Amino acid sequence: MASKVPKSTISEFDLIARFFTRPNLVPSQITLGIGDDCALLRPTPGMEMAISSDMLVEGRHFLAGADPQKLGHKCLAVNLSDLAAMGARPLGFTLAFSLPQADCAWLAGFADGLFALADECNCALIGGDTTRGPLNICITIFGEILPGQALRRDAAQAGDDIWISGTLGDARLALAGLRHEVALDRATQAAAAARLDMPTPRVALGLALRGIAHAAIDISDGLSGDLGHILQRSGCGALVNLDALPLGSMLAQQPQALQREFALFGGDDYELCFTAAAAQRAAILAAAHTAGTAVTRIGRIEPDAGLRLVDASGAVLDMQYSSFDHFTSP
Amino acid sequence: MASKVPKSTISEFDLIARFFTRPNLVPSQITLGIGDDCALLRPTPGMEMAISSDMLVEGRHFLAGADPQKLGHKCLAVNLSDLAAMGARPLGFTLAFSLPQADCAWLAGFADGLFALADECNCALIGGDTTRGPLNICITIFGEILPGQALRRDAAQAGDDIWISGTLGDARLALAGLRHEVALDRATQAAAAARLDMPTPRVALGLALRGIAHAAIDISDGLSGDLGHILQRSGCGALVNLDALPLGSMLAQQPQALQREFALFGGDDYELCFTAAAAQRAAILAAAHTAGTAVTRIGRIEPDAGLRLVDASGAVLDMQYSSFDHFTSP
Repeated sequence: MASKVPKSTISEFDLIARFFTRPNLVPSQITLGIGDDCALLRPTPGMEMAISSDMLVEGRHFLAGADPQKLGHKCLAVNLSDLAAMGARPLGFTLAFSLPQADCAWLAGFADGLFALADECNCALIGGDTTRGPLNICITIFGEILPGQALRRDAAQAGDDIWISGTLGDARLALAGLRHEVALDRATQAAAAARLDMPTPRVALGLALRGIAHAAIDISDGLSGDLGHILQRSGCGALVNLDALPLGSMLAQQPQALQREFALFGGDDYELCFTAAAAQRAAILAAAHTAGTAVTRIGRIEPDAGLRLVDASGAVLDMQYSSFDHFTSP
Repeated sequence: MASKVPKSTISEFDLIARFFTRPNLVPSQITLGIGDDCALLRPTPGMEMAISSDMLVEGRHFLAGADPQKLGHKCLAVNLSDLAAMGARPLGFTLAFSLPQADCAWLAGFADGLFALADECNCALIGGDTTRGPLNICITIFGEILPGQALRRDAAQAGDDIWISGTLGDARLALAGLRHEVALDRATQAAAAARLDMPTPRVALGLALRGIAHAAIDISDGLSGDLGHILQRSGCGALVNLDALPLGSMLAQQPQALQREFALFGGDDYELCFTAAAAQRAAILAAAHTAGTAVTRIGRIEPDAGLRLVDASGAVLDMQYSSFDHFTSP
């Protein structure tokens, strides 16, 4: 550490100052932002803090050479999606990342994508860490919510409707195209890739569902597995109509077997799956309208454990796939 | 994601359940711990949240093959040290990490080291993320402090004494031994390595200094650079007596030139450097006694910018090294 050979034209502190410091945009609840040992955040009196961390690794969550602007968007989007799935209002986030080198063009693009979404969601960068290493981006996000209002995974009740925001499966279709599992024309690939690369966190919908919905989760690893977490934690089961699943517009043009597989098991859509009492149908639709996000009713929560799949005719279907797991999946 | 080939005998969810879930140890302020989209944390009414993130990368912050138990300790220690440097009381932390594989022996050791320190500091693991990738560990930590009591970097005042906790330079000496920059006998290397591998975060001292000290920082990149942050942010300078620097017991046996270089520019000690009015000397010593941590007065804050180094005779010394920087250092 004592004798030095310059390896980069920009230091760690210059990097933070140049790309990640925006003093005019720190909201009043952030008492102290970037530049000290800790950031200081003053929660609204009486509110609970909702906290989530997601780490994105090159070659695992995104390909080497990924567009930095889209990557900046996605890293924050997946974290905002966790706040949305709790119904929490975003406050701020920390950004810790390791980079092979301090590449200014890459950093400028990454910061652009990151801050465009941060501004849209009123979520301030309040601190973090930068170091050299294989490209790895870790964001921890902070939101707030009134005690008792969080949309927890363990809150589904037998008889609840099951709802999905937006559409499913286009992100998985894009991945299939990239992996040459399916052959897609260029326009289809590009349209599907927009869902994979630039997911929309359903923050406004999550906020609008407080007090109306029971349980919620964001679909990052696939509907089957993520709904499975709600079922397991809530001690219940579900009946889902596969023909009711809202398909991504690109997936809707593919063969039915692919539609069902990708809508049910494809990850990376970052839609919300939530449950609510049947008496709340009008309130759910009004909340979705307020949030500007379509929602679709796909099934119901039942007392018996397990996920039962049917088609529109009510015939029982047997699907053998499972969700993505970082250590057991290829 | 649809068709699977098992790569590991333990899934992501089993990994979290087996090594990182300890439901009996979640304190009352954690309304919801691991297992939902977010953790929920209820701050004490009227308190501010102090938040910090640190990322540790294999090959950068620790060597490949590092002892997992020591690594678990160190990852949390460097984050607790940031809370200590603000005077904040630890509440909880998130752990996000990428691992090349789910190695159960490694995970058990890592969790042991992590939770031993977490329990000692009453700091609960409340959430996180696990994924496959090059070994990279990112912890974000949360503490709380009364508004206005934080030991900020910008709070030093001309005339303040400058203090250091514990001793400096043994961590840097251990690194020098590992890098064969110096030849150390086995006992010296082992004793110095304990400081490098198992730093002690000065949490109790940070808490005891609230309302007494002005500015504080933890020494992670070297006294010269880290004190420099206080000087820059506070708009002042400092006079430091190199002969007053408290040396690590292994460094104290080395030649004087090495002592001065490593005490001034060596990182990884995680001691606190803080400033306080001269009228507070007795209070500082009492706080240090309460915290069970030695402190040493090494100089004073002066109105003129810059760091001036003198020896015990008052002769001015010229030291040309600089602190570690992740992007400009080798």
